[in-house]
Amino acid sequence: AQSSVTLFGVIDVAARYTKANGQDTKQLTNDGSSSSRFGVRGVEDLGGGLKAGFWLEGALAADTGTADATRFWGRRASVSLMGDFGEVRLGRGKTSTRLVVDDFDVYTTTGLGDVTRVYSLLGSGIDTINRADNLVQYFLPSDLGGVYGSFDVAAGEGVNGKKSYGGRLGYKMGDLNVAGGYQTTDSFNSKYKQLSLGGSYDFKVVKVNALLTQLKFGSLKQNVYTIGALVPVTAAGSVTAQFSKASTNGTADASATTAGDAKFLTVGYQHNLSKRTALYTTASYIKNDGLAAFRVQTNAVAAARGGKSGGLDVGIKHSF
Amino acid sequence: AQSSVTLFGVIDVAARYTKANGQDTKQLTNDGSSSSRFGVRGVEDLGGGLKAGFWLEGALAADTGTADATRFWGRRASVSLMGDFGEVRLGRGKTSTRLVVDDFDVYTTTGLGDVTRVYSLLGSGIDTINRADNLVQYFLPSDLGGVYGSFDVAAGEGVNGKKSYGGRLGYKMGDLNVAGGYQTTDSFNSKYKQLSLGGSYDFKVVKVNALLTQLKFGSLKQNVYTIGALVPVTAAGSVTAQFSKASTNGTADASATTAGDAKFLTVGYQHNLSKRTALYTTASYIKNDGLAAFRVQTNAVAAARGGKSGGLDVGIKHSF
Amino acid sequence: AQSSVTLFGVIDVAARYTKANGQDTKQLTNDGSSSSRFGVRGVEDLGGGLKAGFWLEGALAADTGTADATRFWGRRASVSLMGDFGEVRLGRGKTSTRLVVDDFDVYTTTGLGDVTRVYSLLGSGIDTINRADNLVQYFLPSDLGGVYGSFDVAAGEGVNGKKSYGGRLGYKMGDLNVAGGYQTTDSFNSKYKQLSLGGSYDFKVVKVNALLTQLKFGSLKQNVYTIGALVPVTAAGSVTAQFSKASTNGTADASATTAGDAKFLTVGYQHNLSKRTALYTTASYIKNDGLAAFRVQTNAVAAARGGKSGGLDVGIKHSF
Repeated sequence: AQSSVTLFGVIDVAARYTKANGQDTKQLTNDGSSSSRFGVRGVEDLGGGLKAGFWLEGALAADTGTADATRFWGRRASVSLMGDFGEVRLGRGKTSTRLVVDDFDVYTTTGLGDVTRVYSLLGSGIDTINRADNLVQYFLPSDLGGVYGSFDVAAGEGVNGKKSYGGRLGYKMGDLNVAGGYQTTDSFNSKYKQLSLGGSYDFKVVKVNALLTQLKFGSLKQNVYTIGALVPVTAAGSVTAQFSKASTNGTADASATTAGDAKFLTVGYQHNLSKRTALYTTASYIKNDGLAAFRVQTNAVAAARGGKSGGLDVGIKHSF
Repeated sequence: AQSSVTLFGVIDVAARYTKANGQDTKQLTNDGSSSSRFGVRGVEDLGGGLKAGFWLEGALAADTGTADATRFWGRRASVSLMGDFGEVRLGRGKTSTRLVVDDFDVYTTTGLGDVTRVYSLLGSGIDTINRADNLVQYFLPSDLGGVYGSFDVAAGEGVNGKKSYGGRLGYKMGDLNVAGGYQTTDSFNSKYKQLSLGGSYDFKVVKVNALLTQLKFGSLKQNVYTIGALVPVTAAGSVTAQFSKASTNGTADASATTAGDAKFLTVGYQHNLSKRTALYTTASYIKNDGLAAFRVQTNAVAAARGGKSGGLDVGIKHSF
Repeated sequence: AQSSVTLFGVIDVAARYTKANGQDTKQLTNDGSSSSRFGVRGVEDLGGGLKAGFWLEGALAADTGTADATRFWGRRASVSLMGDFGEVRLGRGKTSTRLVVDDFDVYTTTGLGDVTRVYSLLGSGIDTINRADNLVQYFLPSDLGGVYGSFDVAAGEGVNGKKSYGGRLGYKMGDLNVAGGYQTTDSFNSKYKQLSLGGSYDFKVVKVNALLTQLKFGSLKQNVYTIGALVPVTAAGSVTAQFSKASTNGTADASATTAGDAKFLTVGYQHNLSKRTALYTTASYIKNDGLAAFRVQTNAVAAARGGKSGGLDVGIKHSF
């Protein structure tokens, strides 16, 4: 059977300055714009419209030469059967609901602007907020007139916070994209529930994104409203900005473990040297309220309760 | 010099149900039919009939995205010189004697049917039953009129249970294949000895396998008799079955550490979607006797002494 | 943009005998002549003379199938921009000063002859003697009439012994190559300073290398003088020899932690089976003086204070 194997990856390195609680940190760090990775993937044509595929992809950090020591292929490890019916995918990978967040976060949940920096697990200790182990996923076929979606079950195998069900449905036509995702994960005899609704419209002079995420765990609740924009300023350069407002309910506010009130602002600029190589700079700032202590990515210093955390980076990313 | 480098691998994911001691487990797991792996290998033509080759191959688990954290290239890491004289191979890899077991186990020592699940180390603590470190191997050339074989020494480097000597000799002609292997490993001032004799004949309507393994450690002894069959039922599908009877001698029976009496039955079905992609299902069952407590693969629950362990899986494997 | 991705590596396995303090060790080991590695690298042409490149390279040990468990890509992980101005490289890699030592050590700091076996860290505990994390490097362009060089800064990120500055300048013309490197690393409120000056001339019947390294940490100091030669004896074979004399000053001599007086002699022979595959044998011997206790590579047994360590290996290396 005809087949192909592709080696691929990303190296993203950034010089970053962060500050929290009066202390600043200077780092050569990673993943300011895209997550660094190394991967191998392939597709085999089985005939009759059927295909088999595999995907192995793991994280790496070029500043120290490390890979993920516990999960070398931790970003995705899967085998798929694809056909007119869509795709059935087995292994480890992103949950369907996270894909909604990725799609409507201007910074695709990466770097200083990663919107999930102000998302709260509400003390649930779940392990499915981004990727999940033991995932059985079904993706709708791509020819449904703009409708797309996927649904997944993660086998918990008796480990707390790993058993989940989720799905997303979306509609993409021309410059419009809207989608919603919902996921529920078992934890401590309760359920952690994530609802994410997103939409974007590309007006050409500006592409606008909006995202609402509601997180619940028992009586605890957090809402995160996000609005973002991407403005092409030259043929190769674009300016981005995003603002999020996160607020937990009174029950969650009362405990330092679960409090999650914050405002989060990010602005960035990316200059493409080619389709595969870009220079970028990003600045972000989190202002916590109450007992919340969110901080921007790779800020080694904890924010004070109700305090601030901010960062600025300049980096380069290269895909292969 | 002309040369080639090949990227290769297998992803095998299975949904599996196992039961032992009254408790059942449901998992998305791996390696129901083939061991998942990622590898790179190559051959260089040195001229004059001489070739150099390398092989790097490591295990992975697609259900969790993990690789082997301590031995990334733990399945095989070797450099070879090959010529009319055969092959000299240095590094880590399968011992010659294990290759006999692989060849005459219908399930190639993989998944629920893996025959070595009822093999006993007899308390020897050796580390050479499958692969060995520091291996110097010699393979006979391939043009000896059907005779094949290999011989190996593993340097112990002062670590208990790692110094071994072994070899195998076989004869393969048309539908017939017979081979014998013998290995001895130093452990605690004694020797762990493995003798494996195997044969297969392909009658076309059925391929029959037989395997006898005798394991000895001091006064302790285990015999494992195995008979298996593969029946092609359609152009793409085949049914497999295998039965093993393992029995330790009285000295070994007396201790829970070394007792090894059991019966082991496996049946399976594999449907090939192509040469590289297949769906399969396997069911296996171990009935221990006396103090033995063998269990089928990935059964997280220990079998009771003299108790049962069983499993059923449905999976997909894809090679690239 | 036009681009290329290359998979590459080295497998080097050797049988080695070492002796120190009256005890001998026999091993199947690695890296007698070249460091075993697995890597992926690529270059993208960005147009207008500008290029982007990446490089991922990690160590492996074929005798045990291990990779570097903590830094899979620990030999080099970097992204580069290259042009008429030279190259700016970000990530982890060799420091500029170490490149001088590599170039003028007949054994390129590898195997039994590795000159740095008698280099002393003088109790500084620095982590930049070979490679450094968080490295920002600038390489001069290659068209400067024989002048070459590179300069680097490693961000310490608050970790002792990791913040460094260094550079090298060299001149290569015809059979002559000379270079000097200097690096300073912060450690415990003091600085570890390395100066290395090297030169080589290829007289064809013999290529002669000379290298002087001076290491300083506070009032502690070590000088290491090295002279080496490579003699081509046949079209495919060459004999090598190298002698080093290391001596610490009185302050360093007084403590077992910092004492570093030794003589170090290595002889070797390499026979190339092709450009990519070679057989080799090496013998080396270290004679310590005073409280020094250097030992040859992979000698598991510590040398006695002022005692001897020696080794002999026979190996094969294969590049792909």
